[in-house]
Amino acid sequence: MNGSGPTKLVDPLEDPLPGVGTYEDFNTIDWVREKSKDRDRHREITNKSRQSTVALLHSVSDAFSGWLLMLLVGLMAGALAGGIDIAAHWLTDLKGGVCLIGFWFNHEHCCWTSNETTFQERDRCPQWQSWAELITGTSEGAFAYIVNYLMYIFWALLFSFLAVILVRAFAPYACGSGIPEIKTILSGFIIRGYLGKWTLIIKTITLVLAVSSGLSLGKEGPLVHVACCCANILCHLFTKYRKNEAKRREVLSAAAAVGVSVAFGAPIGGVLFSLEEVSYYFPLKTLWRSFFAALVAAFTLRSINPFGNSRLVLFYVEFHAPWHLIELAPFILLGIFGGLWGVLFIKANIAWCRRRKSTRLGHYPIIEVLVVAALTALLAYPNSYTRMSGAELISELFNDCSLLDSSQLCGYKQPANVSETGVGNSLADRPAGEGLYTALWQLALALIFKMLITVITFGMKVPSGLFIPSMAVGAIAGRLLGVGMEQLAYYNHDWLIFRGWCSPGADCITPGLYAMVGAAACLGGVTRMTVSLVVIMFELTGGLEYIVPLMAATMTSKWVADAFGREGIYEAHIRLNGYPFLEAKEEFEHSSLAVDVMRPRRGDPALAVLTQDGMTVEEVENLVENTHYSGFPVVVSQESQRLVGFVLRRDLLISIDNARKRQDGIVGASLVVFTEHTPLQPPEAPPFLRLRSILDLSPFTVTDHTPMDITVDIFRKLGLRQCLVTHNGRLLGIITKKDILKHMAQIANRDPDSILFN
Amino acid sequence: MNGSGPTKLVDPLEDPLPGVGTYEDFNTIDWVREKSKDRDRHREITNKSRQSTVALLHSVSDAFSGWLLMLLVGLMAGALAGGIDIAAHWLTDLKGGVCLIGFWFNHEHCCWTSNETTFQERDRCPQWQSWAELITGTSEGAFAYIVNYLMYIFWALLFSFLAVILVRAFAPYACGSGIPEIKTILSGFIIRGYLGKWTLIIKTITLVLAVSSGLSLGKEGPLVHVACCCANILCHLFTKYRKNEAKRREVLSAAAAVGVSVAFGAPIGGVLFSLEEVSYYFPLKTLWRSFFAALVAAFTLRSINPFGNSRLVLFYVEFHAPWHLIELAPFILLGIFGGLWGVLFIKANIAWCRRRKSTRLGHYPIIEVLVVAALTALLAYPNSYTRMSGAELISELFNDCSLLDSSQLCGYKQPANVSETGVGNSLADRPAGEGLYTALWQLALALIFKMLITVITFGMKVPSGLFIPSMAVGAIAGRLLGVGMEQLAYYNHDWLIFRGWCSPGADCITPGLYAMVGAAACLGGVTRMTVSLVVIMFELTGGLEYIVPLMAATMTSKWVADAFGREGIYEAHIRLNGYPFLEAKEEFEHSSLAVDVMRPRRGDPALAVLTQDGMTVEEVENLVENTHYSGFPVVVSQESQRLVGFVLRRDLLISIDNARKRQDGIVGASLVVFTEHTPLQPPEAPPFLRLRSILDLSPFTVTDHTPMDITVDIFRKLGLRQCLVTHNGRLLGIITKKDILKHMAQIANRDPDSILFN
Repeated sequence: MNGSGPTKLVDPLEDPLPGVGTYEDFNTIDWVREKSKDRDRHREITNKSRQSTVALLHSVSDAFSGWLLMLLVGLMAGALAGGIDIAAHWLTDLKGGVCLIGFWFNHEHCCWTSNETTFQERDRCPQWQSWAELITGTSEGAFAYIVNYLMYIFWALLFSFLAVILVRAFAPYACGSGIPEIKTILSGFIIRGYLGKWTLIIKTITLVLAVSSGLSLGKEGPLVHVACCCANILCHLFTKYRKNEAKRREVLSAAAAVGVSVAFGAPIGGVLFSLEEVSYYFPLKTLWRSFFAALVAAFTLRSINPFGNSRLVLFYVEFHAPWHLIELAPFILLGIFGGLWGVLFIKANIAWCRRRKSTRLGHYPIIEVLVVAALTALLAYPNSYTRMSGAELISELFNDCSLLDSSQLCGYKQPANVSETGVGNSLADRPAGEGLYTALWQLALALIFKMLITVITFGMKVPSGLFIPSMAVGAIAGRLLGVGMEQLAYYNHDWLIFRGWCSPGADCITPGLYAMVGAAACLGGVTRMTVSLVVIMFELTGGLEYIVPLMAATMTSKWVADAFGREGIYEAHIRLNGYPFLEAKEEFEHSSLAVDVMRPRRGDPALAVLTQDGMTVEEVENLVENTHYSGFPVVVSQESQRLVGFVLRRDLLISIDNARKRQDGIVGASLVVFTEHTPLQPPEAPPFLRLRSILDLSPFTVTDHTPMDITVDIFRKLGLRQCLVTHNGRLLGIITKKDILKHMAQIANRDPDSILFN
Repeated sequence: MNGSGPTKLVDPLEDPLPGVGTYEDFNTIDWVREKSKDRDRHREITNKSRQSTVALLHSVSDAFSGWLLMLLVGLMAGALAGGIDIAAHWLTDLKGGVCLIGFWFNHEHCCWTSNETTFQERDRCPQWQSWAELITGTSEGAFAYIVNYLMYIFWALLFSFLAVILVRAFAPYACGSGIPEIKTILSGFIIRGYLGKWTLIIKTITLVLAVSSGLSLGKEGPLVHVACCCANILCHLFTKYRKNEAKRREVLSAAAAVGVSVAFGAPIGGVLFSLEEVSYYFPLKTLWRSFFAALVAAFTLRSINPFGNSRLVLFYVEFHAPWHLIELAPFILLGIFGGLWGVLFIKANIAWCRRRKSTRLGHYPIIEVLVVAALTALLAYPNSYTRMSGAELISELFNDCSLLDSSQLCGYKQPANVSETGVGNSLADRPAGEGLYTALWQLALALIFKMLITVITFGMKVPSGLFIPSMAVGAIAGRLLGVGMEQLAYYNHDWLIFRGWCSPGADCITPGLYAMVGAAACLGGVTRMTVSLVVIMFELTGGLEYIVPLMAATMTSKWVADAFGREGIYEAHIRLNGYPFLEAKEEFEHSSLAVDVMRPRRGDPALAVLTQDGMTVEEVENLVENTHYSGFPVVVSQESQRLVGFVLRRDLLISIDNARKRQDGIVGASLVVFTEHTPLQPPEAPPFLRLRSILDLSPFTVTDHTPMDITVDIFRKLGLRQCLVTHNGRLLGIITKKDILKHMAQIANRDPDSILFN
């Protein structure tokens, strides 16, 4: 809370000292003070705007600067995402071969100019040569296969090595998905450099390398981090956002929406993701601006057109058959699978990450990445479904088979009547052919492989997102179940459950839809997203038709997963890292009172307080030196303990230091005065040190009888750092955010010392 | 805040008296207390669930009751909306004629069985006879026209008369759109009966009548009211929601989403509408449940299929041509028009409503409705665009002309090459023909008519929504501009601005899109919705393609309108009615402090306080009788003014009354004691009246130096009724929600006494 108050701004003598009102690294901001500062600033500009035209223009430009910033964030993030897509596409193709007319072409571009007209032939145009062809001159035979295999592993190792080296050398913050840290930052924590320019540059480059290396990770989560870095850097262009931590966090919330918007081409889903999953303070104004930025970014990305199909969305799906009510049963089954997988994945991944932190494994991050990359490449290459990138795999699994589809997944036996009646009801359910059976086996193996490798991949020291691997696991499971259902219906269409809607020759079960539902369920289980997930999926399909299956699966998945523990993967990682994050979604259910949580505890020494006009500079300095508290309450007198205000340690130190240097006559024996009027003193005494300007005159207080659920609510909603506790008007103690988190950890039988920061 | 605290629940002797903890009509609830009550309840159930299987089942059913309630709300609201659609359709058609095979068929159903095969002929099937045909035997000639005209006016008068009579006689709360009141209720105000069963029944019936009468009003706003009534009634089935005002408001927020979902067939837009426009407290859990309920309702409505086309959305639009960047200029122009129209409409409508309140006009609501209905029918009939219902008009205006379209709006001159080359580029821009010119004239007249009549219609004592009339105004303006642009491009395709994208023979300008953009702009200007409006429109078109024009127009519209006053129509009506509504969107920008707003003011008599153990029953009763405050602070003693707690007038009166009746020996001289331990007293003194159980031991306090912007923030975010003001630990005064609203009115140079309720 801004103790200097609005009226003080007019007084030029009380201009804040540099450093007063700022925060240290790894500390929590005071939302109320920041917002109050911004309102003061706004008020000043509005008042001035009545005086001159220049000031009026300044006021107008100030009002629109938020929109301009959003526009820039959208453009920059969209452009970067486009660049990342193009580069990752090229490098991924490079693992398989090279384009002879120019090594900078990817496979598709290389073959565009080819004369081969049919679609399948174009895939094997002469300009594009696999490494075996280039080296041995032939693409057939076991030797060529081994050459390709080795080259694949070589590139995977090279890319992952470059990625981890760059991260280690230039920007250690660039690793991981970044979403846990961004959640923490948005809740008011300060991690300097986490959203800086080095992080941005290195994360962008290493993200491309990590994705191309074939590791089981996605670019969607890190794109959120990239977008937030863009926003944070662009904030420096505008005083309004540069100087105010709360305002900057509004922009970062919007940037999170932008990140998801460019990742999936789903602007509305992105905004809801930011609202539901990452943001802490999300006023309506931010909703509107996020939406704007998300749209700008989506359209920027589309005009770059990295997928070459001028689609906005990452996975464009179009289904033909409606779903039937009975199908809800398998969809719910997929939901249960997704929930269980989510729980298992979180438990396993956290156990593995804790092991990395506590054992010697964590000392060799480069070797770890190389080993995992080698392992991934070695196991992934033989299976075509793991060899392709995660996004390609999901696309293929979502795909609805048409008759002309050459994919193995569509390897159904051709119906007999095609040759006679032309195309016929080409989309009707058909018996599985040999191709499909092979595909199913490969998919089953891919499922096991993906499930295991993702657990050890997420959390390594390279940029790594979770969305794509989670979705891939779900999509494989869904497709398997979908094909199973389809075959069941084909061979048993006289069963009661199929009668009436799935007669022979009808197109009743769409395995692609099952894959989609499974993907949503698994992603939901891992992240515990709900509405935003369904809306993202809705934007991918574009039809309200399929929302109900998606919703049934996500709901089931969340309920099942929540039954085993309410934390999503991001919250679990936040806790693992000991960040001071007060979850807004979970209710505080214990019945403790403020008096049970506050410091000092019974038996502890009394609370360290300052008096408003009874302490000398030396006494204050001693008190500050001998304690480690971030702030001190100021009381009328030690006897009455009536609260006057609250002063922060940092502000106090800076002010005393400054006064000793600049102000004449301030010595150790000078009286520190927080009152408005100076007290009477003998004339020979040294001058006062007046510190009312750094005193927060409106500290938050609760009574000792306040239930903790209400106190937690106040902390969350107002974004407090600390709150004073009174009893019958007398100061009794203090509760900080850290105290609350420790108390909550204690209730949950966890180690309260796992909360590391203030 | 729940003074009795969680530990008290165990004590059976301190079970709350009936009435304690409830609220009076036209009062504001205490959100913190309600939420705390619910948490206590939840805690109790969870604790019990460990003891027995029955209790465990109870706990599980309690956890799922919210979802069940949502399902029921969705089903009921969807079914009602379907019924309303069908009935309104039938009655609207009845104004023009009757079906001979059964008067309960509407025009479309009547002609379904007809043998006429072409689409246009089916519209004039022999089974359906206009009133002139039925009465005079012919449908041609001036006489038949006059008969039809008179019958049209007759039905309009009859329907509107029935509507207003029913509202007057049975449910006065059923009039208007209901959204302003629902906003107020959701913010914590209590209006008993506003969401009751009579309101539901009467609003449903009269809504049908009002819409069918041809008045310039829509059913979309009232559908929100209907959905909220459903939710409120269904809440009575579940203790959890029946007894808790805060929990019930969560359900009502979801119901508002349901209302918009069924009105437009836009579930996501509905949820965002609830979030952006009506809700006050909208936790994430509610987001997810709203979404569920909105989907259930949308699918219920679709399975009833009132539009007969199995479309989910109200206006299904499909455009073929993309838009060009240059077109943003006319779109922004439409935004400016929408904004100006919004401002003008709000000003004019509020002025008219104030006139109705203050002059004798308000005493004759029935005559007013009849006069307006007669006027509307009289002026609307001759113009085919005003004769059709608002929804039909908008549908027609949104429509993209195809070559076969018989509508007057598509009366272009046929291109010469059609007869030669078949269909050709049938959708290319074409010169306007005679039919289109006629249509343009009629539309211009319809625009003026709609603009004027809507101002006096909204606010009459019949159910009346604003969405459709506002959209109609915008759609007409947009279509006019669109056709203008199209003709401009056709005749001047060599102009610089058209060169390159609008060559002859190209299909470059879609007047239907202009109509849509105009509709969004006008609706945005009137209601100041932004994201939700764009998302609703997105759901209607189903393509992200057209979001940018819509967004440009809505943004412009909001900015233009906000420049003249930040209030939307709903907020303006809330203020007109003097409801205590603390707008969450507007920032409090004045620099006053808590001490400037609190009571008592300087010079006023001191604050009425109780002491914790120094007053007799008689003294307390006198104090309560001689003041009108809703609550009293309790202090340690009059001298120290140290705050102990806060007690509500209602609870105090009920408790004293109860004690006097039930408890032996309580007389006027009995000491009222709020302390935990009873004070020493001479043995012959009458027994104490112990009232600690009704004392709120954790009242909110701020210091006198707290800036008002922070105080307002606390009130909004925590949902407070009152807050005590202290100075250096001593009680100084009190700030209530009403005080804040009065202060805000004063700052805005409005009459502070216009705030009527607590």
